[in-house]
Amino acid sequence: MKTATKALVVFSGGQDSTTCLAQALADFDSVETVTFDYGQRHVIELEQARILAQISGATEHHQIDMQWLGRLTENSLTRPDIPITHTNGQLPSTFVDGRNLFFLSVAAVLAKQRGIQVIYTGVCETDFSGYPDCRDSFIQSLTQTLKLAIEYPYEIRTPLMWLTKAETVQLMAQLGKLDWYAETHTCYEGLRPACGKCPACTLRLKGFADAGIPDPLPYL
Amino acid sequence: MKTATKALVVFSGGQDSTTCLAQALADFDSVETVTFDYGQRHVIELEQARILAQISGATEHHQIDMQWLGRLTENSLTRPDIPITHTNGQLPSTFVDGRNLFFLSVAAVLAKQRGIQVIYTGVCETDFSGYPDCRDSFIQSLTQTLKLAIEYPYEIRTPLMWLTKAETVQLMAQLGKLDWYAETHTCYEGLRPACGKCPACTLRLKGFADAGIPDPLPYL
Repeated sequence: MKTATKALVVFSGGQDSTTCLAQALADFDSVETVTFDYGQRHVIELEQARILAQISGATEHHQIDMQWLGRLTENSLTRPDIPITHTNGQLPSTFVDGRNLFFLSVAAVLAKQRGIQVIYTGVCETDFSGYPDCRDSFIQSLTQTLKLAIEYPYEIRTPLMWLTKAETVQLMAQLGKLDWYAETHTCYEGLRPACGKCPACTLRLKGFADAGIPDPLPYL
Repeated sequence: MKTATKALVVFSGGQDSTTCLAQALADFDSVETVTFDYGQRHVIELEQARILAQISGATEHHQIDMQWLGRLTENSLTRPDIPITHTNGQLPSTFVDGRNLFFLSVAAVLAKQRGIQVIYTGVCETDFSGYPDCRDSFIQSLTQTLKLAIEYPYEIRTPLMWLTKAETVQLMAQLGKLDWYAETHTCYEGLRPACGKCPACTLRLKGFADAGIPDPLPYL
């Protein structure tokens, strides 16, 4: 059932946050999106986020300059000179220390300015990425910290927290917005059509295969 | 008793954080300082912080560009067009939503990069400023959030949390560093010698008077 209040979606233009956006629009009458420009490897993410915000009917789309975050930390997601590696048991080299801490804290300041209390984020414990700032325990702790820091009644909703990639695809099918996935960006190589071979594309394609639903995204 | 490990002091060049710096140097062999350039009304703060870091014998002084924080929020401390007002019962107009949340989170990322676990900050519940992100409950919650976000064993020390301004001055006398106060910046008007009349100067002078210790800072 929709409520008359508003929600803000932390929105990367990727598959997970686009599913969150669909869920938020099912839950709220008015939904705004916020995308962070933190020196991503691929500017295409920002462009797809803008396109998807428009397609979805989000009331307002915010893009916030967070280039300082890329300068603060050293990692391969923001520094083209560091190769992307995936290791077992260790954090992948794409990890930005406390990235979701900063994204959600900035989103919280924006939300208060916009009179919004509910923030959606697509973080997920079940994708085995090993990012500590994607865990439910972190989100619960951060919610409390934000309430104390800003004295504002925040609620952070994480509809994907316990879903597999396949279940996320199935959720999107239930929400009737599978076609939005054609505009989402996943490929670590920054290609569109996507490469279909990098770890991100491989994980994405496995999710669709497991869900028994075809991926509307064009691949090379 | 000093430990062989290192500490990081969140350092504004004001009276409180200079007292924290003296305490940290009494507790640790090696202490680094970090100052945030967030579009302060008075650049003199940054300069005095640099001078004090040098005088104190801090191992390293970091200045981090946080101009984005000033752009994110609207308040009189960073916007010369908004007059400074002090009201009873409401937050003063100098409040930046979540300022200490962002300062301490950035300090935490820096601390980890420098191999430091202990962070000092001069926040204080007893100065009646009404800032929610100066309270002990916030610091406790943030410590937990940072540990979860970054998976690093942070400790945040707040030696001034329960001290009055007079007790802070007395602490500095015990630490034998009262002369450092001559270089600290307090005045809201940005004057050096200080105006002695603005709310910040008045509060400072009352603290010295209550402590029965003369303020070494030159006044107009």
